[in-house]
Amino acid sequence: MRSSGIDRRDIAVIAAEVATAVDLAEGPAGVLDVLRAVARHEPIAVRDVSRHAELPVPIVAAICNELRRRNVVDSQRPVRLTESSRSAFAVGGWQDGGRCPTCDGRGIVVPAELEAIGDELDRLAEAMPEAKVELDQTHCTVDTKLRRVMLMAELGLLTKRMVFLGDDDLTSLSVAHALSLTGETPSITVVDVDTDVLAFIAEQARTLGVHIDTVEHDLVKPLPEALLGAFELVFTDPPYTIAGAELFLSRAASALAPQIGHHILFAFGARRPSETVAVQRIIGELGLAVRSLQPNFNDYVGAGILGGTSHMYHLRTTDETAPLIVGEHEGPLYSADGRAAAVRRYQCVQCKHIEPVGPGERYPRIADLKQATCPQCGSEKFRPLSLNERPKR
Amino acid sequence: MRSSGIDRRDIAVIAAEVATAVDLAEGPAGVLDVLRAVARHEPIAVRDVSRHAELPVPIVAAICNELRRRNVVDSQRPVRLTESSRSAFAVGGWQDGGRCPTCDGRGIVVPAELEAIGDELDRLAEAMPEAKVELDQTHCTVDTKLRRVMLMAELGLLTKRMVFLGDDDLTSLSVAHALSLTGETPSITVVDVDTDVLAFIAEQARTLGVHIDTVEHDLVKPLPEALLGAFELVFTDPPYTIAGAELFLSRAASALAPQIGHHILFAFGARRPSETVAVQRIIGELGLAVRSLQPNFNDYVGAGILGGTSHMYHLRTTDETAPLIVGEHEGPLYSADGRAAAVRRYQCVQCKHIEPVGPGERYPRIADLKQATCPQCGSEKFRPLSLNERPKR
Ligand SMILES: C[S@@+](CC[C@H](N)C(=O)[O-])C[C@H]1O[C@@H](n2cnc3c(N)ncnc32)[C@H](O)[C@@H]1O
Ligand SMILES: C[S@@+](CC[C@H](N)C(=O)[O-])C[C@H]1O[C@@H](n2cnc3c(N)ncnc32)[C@H](O)[C@@H]1O
Repeated sequence: MRSSGIDRRDIAVIAAEVATAVDLAEGPAGVLDVLRAVARHEPIAVRDVSRHAELPVPIVAAICNELRRRNVVDSQRPVRLTESSRSAFAVGGWQDGGRCPTCDGRGIVVPAELEAIGDELDRLAEAMPEAKVELDQTHCTVDTKLRRVMLMAELGLLTKRMVFLGDDDLTSLSVAHALSLTGETPSITVVDVDTDVLAFIAEQARTLGVHIDTVEHDLVKPLPEALLGAFELVFTDPPYTIAGAELFLSRAASALAPQIGHHILFAFGARRPSETVAVQRIIGELGLAVRSLQPNFNDYVGAGILGGTSHMYHLRTTDETAPLIVGEHEGPLYSADGRAAAVRRYQCVQCKHIEPVGPGERYPRIADLKQATCPQCGSEKFRPLSLNERPKR
Repeated sequence: MRSSGIDRRDIAVIAAEVATAVDLAEGPAGVLDVLRAVARHEPIAVRDVSRHAELPVPIVAAICNELRRRNVVDSQRPVRLTESSRSAFAVGGWQDGGRCPTCDGRGIVVPAELEAIGDELDRLAEAMPEAKVELDQTHCTVDTKLRRVMLMAELGLLTKRMVFLGDDDLTSLSVAHALSLTGETPSITVVDVDTDVLAFIAEQARTLGVHIDTVEHDLVKPLPEALLGAFELVFTDPPYTIAGAELFLSRAASALAPQIGHHILFAFGARRPSETVAVQRIIGELGLAVRSLQPNFNDYVGAGILGGTSHMYHLRTTDETAPLIVGEHEGPLYSADGRAAAVRRYQCVQCKHIEPVGPGERYPRIADLKQATCPQCGSEKFRPLSLNERPKR
């Protein structure tokens, strides 16, 4: 495999160095993910690398800088390999052709008939209230709205009794517009804490001649009685924090009728692998089954720290589904709430001692705590507590 | 919505009746999934309904019989709706067009260049030893083999150090054949308990002029030293039981180098929603992150109880990844091992009492135990134990 310049073995060494230099939670594999994205799509903007490698933009930028210093990435922008590193990544031919070109690997397409409402959705996106950062609002693209509608169509969910837990994306209006094409009546409720968003949705629905129930409610508090067990489908794009996922999915579990097989469409983009695991454990604790998980299904307008994309989970209820949070939620919720949102408590499996783990804490990562061992009994086994969980004694 | 015959409201009532009549774990939603598949694809074979609705063939057959008695499904075969029920499902137009036609919703396509090895893989499938039912062997189709190769290509995994934990599907040989197109050298190890499969793989690799390491080993026992922490990618299509998933994924965690971001491709088809949740909880307990989950990615030759299909999980290691089973596994493993495989122990969160739940037990479903409450202390909260977990005191 050796050629003029840097070979695969060199790359492995460099990836390890760079991972250490930027203290990458994803390790050398994360650096290789970045290099792979560059090799396949060069020249490519940092933001697009972020999308492909599923790493935050600032982290990708830092990795690219380290790679430039090591002569793997060229000094020009957008990002490209150097002459001497390129051969280490040369694949080409059939190996580059795996992702379906029709749907860009997402499995869902938008038929021309539905594209017709795209202009109207563009107009709504223009006219709507501006995104409020303090509520973690970031609007998804019109393509994403249409794709969400088609995902619901594909799953046969468009005429279900559905509720949106937060909807600055106007997915509710997109469903209403789509159904108006076929003269069908949607059954839609939107819950949000933002009255501007709610007023806009209600008014635009009226203009369209359909009714959308809008409910002003802070999901930090339990759902209003009337919404408990009332729905067959929940759509939610919650704050992208572990606390946000746990709270909004708990409310989703409460909103669904207590039967097997009801649906949650859950948009989520995690920042670090350990957060992904934490959120997926919460899904398991909620007794929800993941039926599909489509990476990078949702695109958002404006770069944003997550590279402007998130994943789509399709969850279904089982006979074990129950909310983890039933009462009021306390503590941080939004990305902006800062470090606290990323801190999670771990309990020693042996002596039940509890230790917070996260940025700014004594143990920033669970690996650090494991290496240090339990400060009380020296054990290496810890289990993460749900955010609102009372520790076991 | 009312028309000549049966309307949507009638269908809801009938779905509930039928779910009760066949004692369906998936509830009325499962019956509606079946009806939806029939409505979209009629006339359609029971086996294909099974695929679409993700329900076992015998269950679909029983549901269809109940629907025939209620005049919703016609008496003719293959399965179709009656004149009077059809209007309740009429959608048509754009709502039927969500699934990408190019990749059938799977997101992965096989380029013509790679199709070229299809004939050779056909020949191998013909020539290979027959499937051994007692080891849960069922061979996947050649299309599936090619699709698996392209999934690895898409993820940049084809030249990683890879190990197959069981490989009667000959995915290892498919990778070797694909890489021979570009003259690249694969790094492949295959572990199996079936010496016929191993001998066939080794011999066919030799014929191709490449080396595949074959290791005869019963995964019930810990991996041989030499394989511990030695790989970057594990591919496994384990027995489709909770015990099978827990054991093979634990061995996978042991086989991977102890770094973040390594890969497991895990084919699995669960029989009931509660099994899906159980397996997904195990994935979380193993500290593995699910990066994608593609339903019905894998097709198998011959009908089989699962409708000849399974899902594909792409998992990645995190800093919390560790096997749940380190020593020898005891207890049932295969589907054929019968009811014991479906029984799981639950521990009362309050008094720590342990109760088995599953078919043939006092509480066949966790819902039954919850309703009855803990026989020792009356609590309603239980947590599932890993199959080999020592209960917490
Ligand atoms: C949370 S934002 C989308 C966030 C995006 N996924 C992210 O993390 O960047 C989605 C919707 O939830 C609403 N929302 C935020 N906090 C809420 C709360 N406490 N109760 C109800 N709705 C809330 C927002 O107003 C918005 O319409
Ligand atoms: C388990 S089978 C595929 C089963 C399929 N997913 C199902 O449940 O119908 C896949 C491979 O695992 C091998 N296998 C089965 N049990 C094994 C064991 N205890 N140790 C090693 N390999 C095993 C089989 O020989 C076969 O090649």
